[in-house]
Amino acid sequence: MSHTQALAGFLAELTYEQIPGVVLDRTEDLFLDWIGSALASQGARPIPLFERYADRMGPQQGKAKILVSGRGTSAYFAALVNGASSHLVEQDDLHNSSVLHPATVVFSAVLAAAQDLGKTGQDLLLASVAGYEAGIRIGEFMGRSHYRIFHTTATVGTLAAAVGVGKLLNFDKEQFINLLGTAGTQAAGFWEFLRDAADSKQLHTAKAAADGLLAAYLTEDGLTGARNILEGDQGMAAGMSSDSDATKLSDRLGSRWALVETSFKFHASCRHTHPAADALLHLMQREGLRHEQIARVVTRVHQGAIDVLGRVDVPQTVHQAKFSMGAVLGLIAVHGSAQLIEFRDLALTDPDVAAFREKVSMELDPEVDDAYPARWLGRVMVTTTDGRSLSAGIDEPKGDPGNTLSRAELEDKVQRLLAFSGARTEEQGKALIQRVWQLRDARDLVNLI
Amino acid sequence: MSHTQALAGFLAELTYEQIPGVVLDRTEDLFLDWIGSALASQGARPIPLFERYADRMGPQQGKAKILVSGRGTSAYFAALVNGASSHLVEQDDLHNSSVLHPATVVFSAVLAAAQDLGKTGQDLLLASVAGYEAGIRIGEFMGRSHYRIFHTTATVGTLAAAVGVGKLLNFDKEQFINLLGTAGTQAAGFWEFLRDAADSKQLHTAKAAADGLLAAYLTEDGLTGARNILEGDQGMAAGMSSDSDATKLSDRLGSRWALVETSFKFHASCRHTHPAADALLHLMQREGLRHEQIARVVTRVHQGAIDVLGRVDVPQTVHQAKFSMGAVLGLIAVHGSAQLIEFRDLALTDPDVAAFREKVSMELDPEVDDAYPARWLGRVMVTTTDGRSLSAGIDEPKGDPGNTLSRAELEDKVQRLLAFSGARTEEQGKALIQRVWQLRDARDLVNLI
Repeated sequence: MSHTQALAGFLAELTYEQIPGVVLDRTEDLFLDWIGSALASQGARPIPLFERYADRMGPQQGKAKILVSGRGTSAYFAALVNGASSHLVEQDDLHNSSVLHPATVVFSAVLAAAQDLGKTGQDLLLASVAGYEAGIRIGEFMGRSHYRIFHTTATVGTLAAAVGVGKLLNFDKEQFINLLGTAGTQAAGFWEFLRDAADSKQLHTAKAAADGLLAAYLTEDGLTGARNILEGDQGMAAGMSSDSDATKLSDRLGSRWALVETSFKFHASCRHTHPAADALLHLMQREGLRHEQIARVVTRVHQGAIDVLGRVDVPQTVHQAKFSMGAVLGLIAVHGSAQLIEFRDLALTDPDVAAFREKVSMELDPEVDDAYPARWLGRVMVTTTDGRSLSAGIDEPKGDPGNTLSRAELEDKVQRLLAFSGARTEEQGKALIQRVWQLRDARDLVNLI
Repeated sequence: MSHTQALAGFLAELTYEQIPGVVLDRTEDLFLDWIGSALASQGARPIPLFERYADRMGPQQGKAKILVSGRGTSAYFAALVNGASSHLVEQDDLHNSSVLHPATVVFSAVLAAAQDLGKTGQDLLLASVAGYEAGIRIGEFMGRSHYRIFHTTATVGTLAAAVGVGKLLNFDKEQFINLLGTAGTQAAGFWEFLRDAADSKQLHTAKAAADGLLAAYLTEDGLTGARNILEGDQGMAAGMSSDSDATKLSDRLGSRWALVETSFKFHASCRHTHPAADALLHLMQREGLRHEQIARVVTRVHQGAIDVLGRVDVPQTVHQAKFSMGAVLGLIAVHGSAQLIEFRDLALTDPDVAAFREKVSMELDPEVDDAYPARWLGRVMVTTTDGRSLSAGIDEPKGDPGNTLSRAELEDKVQRLLAFSGARTEEQGKALIQRVWQLRDARDLVNLI
């Protein structure tokens, strides 16, 4: 039996009852995190372009909902717009070893289809777990060579989304094999857009979610696909990878729950700043320090951090501030938080943040560098204004699986995301959060959000 | 200036008046051929699956028309279903050196958008020429290595369709650059499905047409794309080709009209049988021979023909009959034609065809083999029942640019396609043909077909 067949068999046989409670809990966490990420994009370019496209090409009503507008449409267009929305502010989840952002593709497709098909909260959870487990393994299968040119969340994301919707439709093994073929032959998305800061990232997640959904609906009606799209001589690995590893496709199916390896993004900055930000926050809380009491901060980092962050001296844009170690630590020290609102409102204009920024430097640390990328160690050395030398370290950044967000922290993050765009009031946010915590009892998802 | 920029500039500046009359005439020919191909698919699997998808996901009405049903919908779904339809019976056009079937992707997208946007016949012709000229050059640019794993009509087809719709929207050079980026990053489609005879070929042309149209509509609204998706380090050639040639992108823009290099498919059989079929028909007409007067036919062929056709001895299915030199020449000799209806109704059941099939053999001919694939030479040697040895040759198969179909022959082909599916009566076919011959005067395309 091929690895693809083993994966298809696992997906067909997976039941809600087999999924450990901790995995279901985490799926709800990730789902809430995804909702916050999507709603945070309300009104931000280029999301209105996708809304307008759905308006021109889709029906004027439907059971599936566009999150940012609340408008009903067909499942295809809800998946499309929500896929574009939920990756925009880059606060959605990430699975490290597959380099896949699963939520933006899986939940966008699965929620749209679940609303369209009248499915329950438990159906949505089961389908989403299937999408994560398949997508992460396929991402690992495609290898690093794939990621060098192709945007994995776009390419592999199409299959992850398709699998989620296929599980919602109760596919058997044969249907999953055909589904992978039909989804895989639509896999697309190049990194080339990065050079021009073009809008393709939103297009990629939009299309992955929508194309995956399309694959599942057509497969349900009987469309057949290549039976070996992943491993075959004229398939995905053959065409888009030079270091694929088929054993990844069936890696510990049913015992390893890859979903819980997924990281939440906590700070709104470049991920290379997160370990130091967490270590500084830890040190200031431990020592009861205020920002005025700090004279100097040396962050001990891996070479990659210096390569990526070293270019920004005095940030001129919010985006640059997210890539400035000084600005990030300034927000952490002065405001205790470096999330979207702080970046938009304070990173460039607050004189205290600017002053703190000048106190921060980076130094290469061999231990930190050796551990990278398996572990992202945070090490800071602080000199206080009264002459003390203090240091602190964290071994796993906030949001990673071993240091995940508590539900209270996640609720706080989501409320900040809602406040950022103004998509929901705090009260509305509270009600929304409660509905997600009761997801597994929900009989109807049409008015969930 | 990069080759991509040169291409984008050409596309932006191209006017209807610049296009030679012979190119406009041929565009009308190709358009009629495409209509016939699409209507021939009516009712055939898997087209109803795409119709049902459009029904579930799209609006219940619209100015763009699904050809096989006549139903109105939005431009996106008309492009999707017509893209699936027009490649199904494999009677649509082919450009040899790019290995691109332009009509099924370009016309499917352009007609849907033209109907949606209230464009004229001249607008459609100009847009279609732009789509052909760009698509063929991009197909040549991607090279043979691309075609080994990727289905060029799917991948490059997305860009060809996008360019057609972009021209309909009067894009300037900047918009064409962004459009290529947004279309190119959606380019997808593997050959892997061939192994399983899966339905992906229809999915590929459907998605290429629809995704190209999506790219153009979003670009019009301001979505940006990678500026160098074709030639860039993380773009299409980098990810999907090992023998790309950027000079092909701007090859003789404005003086070479690649559209007129496109071949019509005449017989409904495997293309490797066409040269011999044409040569036999020529010989029988020249000598006034009936099939009963022929004792033996030796076809002198290139090695590729023996490789592909040699496997079928006694065909068991219609598809196998299309790959049997004996069955094809049997239809030609007995019925004077080897089109869809003859294959469906006669290829497996007519005893005269079966008897003639036994008289046919293939032999390798060094001259024919040397000329291939630049030229597809047809050579037959016939022995008559009264002992004469006759021979005949053709140097370009019927339908190729140097031996293209006359309008009368094309009308005959289209009427046969309509009769095959029963989509239109002969009278309706005549009226449709007349409307296409008056396309450049059409003010409104909504009720064209």
